[in-house]
Amino acid sequence: MNLNKMGVAAKQAAFTLGQLATSRKDQVLNAMADALLANQTQLLQANAQDLVTAKVRQVKPPMLDRLKLDEDRIQAMATGLRQVANLPDPIGNIDGGFTNEAGLVISKQRVPLGVIGMIYEARPNVTVDAAALCFKSGNAVILRGGKEAIQSNQALTKILQDVLKVQALPEAAIQLVSDTSHETARALMQLNDYLDVLIPRGSGSFIKTVVQTATVPVIETGAGNCHIYVDESADLAMAVRIIVNAKTQRPSVCNAMEKLIINEKVAKSFLPAIAKALAPYQVELRGDTAARKILPLITPATEADWETEYNDYILAIKVVPDLASAINHINRYNTQHSEAIITNNYQHSVQFTQQIDAAVVYVNASTRFTDGFEFGFGAEIGISTQKLHARGPMGLRELTTTKYVVLGTGQIRE
Amino acid sequence: MNLNKMGVAAKQAAFTLGQLATSRKDQVLNAMADALLANQTQLLQANAQDLVTAKVRQVKPPMLDRLKLDEDRIQAMATGLRQVANLPDPIGNIDGGFTNEAGLVISKQRVPLGVIGMIYEARPNVTVDAAALCFKSGNAVILRGGKEAIQSNQALTKILQDVLKVQALPEAAIQLVSDTSHETARALMQLNDYLDVLIPRGSGSFIKTVVQTATVPVIETGAGNCHIYVDESADLAMAVRIIVNAKTQRPSVCNAMEKLIINEKVAKSFLPAIAKALAPYQVELRGDTAARKILPLITPATEADWETEYNDYILAIKVVPDLASAINHINRYNTQHSEAIITNNYQHSVQFTQQIDAAVVYVNASTRFTDGFEFGFGAEIGISTQKLHARGPMGLRELTTTKYVVLGTGQIRE
Repeated sequence: MNLNKMGVAAKQAAFTLGQLATSRKDQVLNAMADALLANQTQLLQANAQDLVTAKVRQVKPPMLDRLKLDEDRIQAMATGLRQVANLPDPIGNIDGGFTNEAGLVISKQRVPLGVIGMIYEARPNVTVDAAALCFKSGNAVILRGGKEAIQSNQALTKILQDVLKVQALPEAAIQLVSDTSHETARALMQLNDYLDVLIPRGSGSFIKTVVQTATVPVIETGAGNCHIYVDESADLAMAVRIIVNAKTQRPSVCNAMEKLIINEKVAKSFLPAIAKALAPYQVELRGDTAARKILPLITPATEADWETEYNDYILAIKVVPDLASAINHINRYNTQHSEAIITNNYQHSVQFTQQIDAAVVYVNASTRFTDGFEFGFGAEIGISTQKLHARGPMGLRELTTTKYVVLGTGQIRE
Repeated sequence: MNLNKMGVAAKQAAFTLGQLATSRKDQVLNAMADALLANQTQLLQANAQDLVTAKVRQVKPPMLDRLKLDEDRIQAMATGLRQVANLPDPIGNIDGGFTNEAGLVISKQRVPLGVIGMIYEARPNVTVDAAALCFKSGNAVILRGGKEAIQSNQALTKILQDVLKVQALPEAAIQLVSDTSHETARALMQLNDYLDVLIPRGSGSFIKTVVQTATVPVIETGAGNCHIYVDESADLAMAVRIIVNAKTQRPSVCNAMEKLIINEKVAKSFLPAIAKALAPYQVELRGDTAARKILPLITPATEADWETEYNDYILAIKVVPDLASAINHINRYNTQHSEAIITNNYQHSVQFTQQIDAAVVYVNASTRFTDGFEFGFGAEIGISTQKLHARGPMGLRELTTTKYVVLGTGQIRE
């Protein structure tokens, strides 16, 4: 595995991709969708090998499920490719411009990032998703998936590369690192000569490791310790509906609710109501002293609870005297992902949205909407929880950068 | 020196700064300008101590010059503060928005980054520049200047902090790391719990070290191995004027020209003309074999020349058969800063601007225009040569990020 060689080839491929017309890119993406469906048998065989190895290694059932491909999932990947083909192409857009004092006409044009490194864990569908989004935005991609999915990922990459070949495009536009050792992952994270950006996808601890190890610029995606604050002015029935949705609709994802902050003026009436509403979902409730005075049977919440993203049917509850205390608690413990207030007080809604530091701040809605598809981007490469480059759901536009094009007539600087 | 303590204080200060009205920020910046002028004697005394120490350490004259403060330079710093006060405030701008399928009203609002770390070398004026730009954009800043300027930097920071105190604002909005050891610099570069971004300013090797060491997201500024390609269709008199400007107006800066790429069809007439025009400036010319056939007395250029940013009165010349070869050479060796073509062929101008990978691509103008002031931003924190977050000259806007504010009426996700 020669990463430098892959890097050189990717950079050359990126040059070609950056010049492709949108219609040509869309044609290729649709051909890739056809090819996935035409090669189902081969894909399922490769995936079966991964599953056998995983069972030998005693991989746990949820991981096995994420790893598994079937006809429906292959169909979904193909549909995903066609959806990306249908999205508007951000490349070539002009993000404004101006004429400066010297008479130079300066425009800011959207261009691809260049070469993107993707490091991710078990799901083989990320291979196709990431390849499609990078390709549509004119970027070459070097993929490094988990060892559990290596046979599936190799089969998928081969299919996509065969399409590139038939279409007379460089196969290095989509490459897979087939050596899944940690050493090679580390080398990829430090391939500064060739990678323009690295996007990790996976658990919080995995992303943290990438941030600590990488010297290539990283777009951090992910962790979500999301709070909902129920104000004393809240429509409590609305608060119940939103919390049940945010906590239970899909607890394993990053935009699910993890903490309930409740104003003490309504805690006594609201906490029994929300406990009752969550009971059918078997959500384990934990609470601070004040919450446990109202719900005596719930588990005491410790300091660790306030910091933890459970990704599970667990909800910790804190009672606060006022909005300022709620904001203070949230800004201290949140992961700057998605935070919500349920209120009917206009001034409180303004204060909350202004003072909370997070990628997405909600008034009277479920945190579950933080998602590229729900936002209408038509795609999502991840949700950025850092502040550079992109914040919140990232679609195709976030896989691009800009270039200033300056048209002169002989200007020199005085 | 407790960096964690500084980080906690900076984060609290950032919360306050993020809520300040523009007029209040401008008032403080103007008060800072007044305070610098009122405390000139004290500043010059502190600077004199730095100069004595530097002379004992046998620091070289150009460095001594960069370190030195005098009345004019203090006046310039004060003027700089007032100019920043006069700039429009990016905070609170709405970068568009939309209503999604579920009826959520989603707006993308400009907010401060939070806490910015600045690491830089000798010039004390960077202390005031950086503090002013960070303050105006609502960010707290932790400054770490070079050991040569420590007395000056401490005196400057004290003056700015005294103004903050009088204005009843947190002094931790502007902090200086007074321990200039490498260990503390390293710790600052890894202060992920408190710093949102790190901006290094200094030499190329210094910035490279920061990129390798930092785990906090870095905005890379800097290195400029800038090329000018003279096309066979160029107005050669214009090419001479632009090259003399780009090479000699200020050779030590990153947007100065370092390489001349010349089309072989005009090399014979152009090279003697440019050699003659550069002679009064004593520019050392180096050339490839073809260039040396035309200018036999110049130094042979080696592989190292193509990669080097001289920052000096040196120019290396390469003769190419066509535009594609010029683009290929530039994309291989440039540092993605500023690149120019001199041409009168429309199609060539399009091809060059589309295919060159750099922050700023010029047609018929000097590369020296890559500058926040020349671009009309009214300020500059640096020139980004990387692709994430910001590319090219960075002004106040590039010191901000966005936050999605989502206004709902009880929406839950189906």
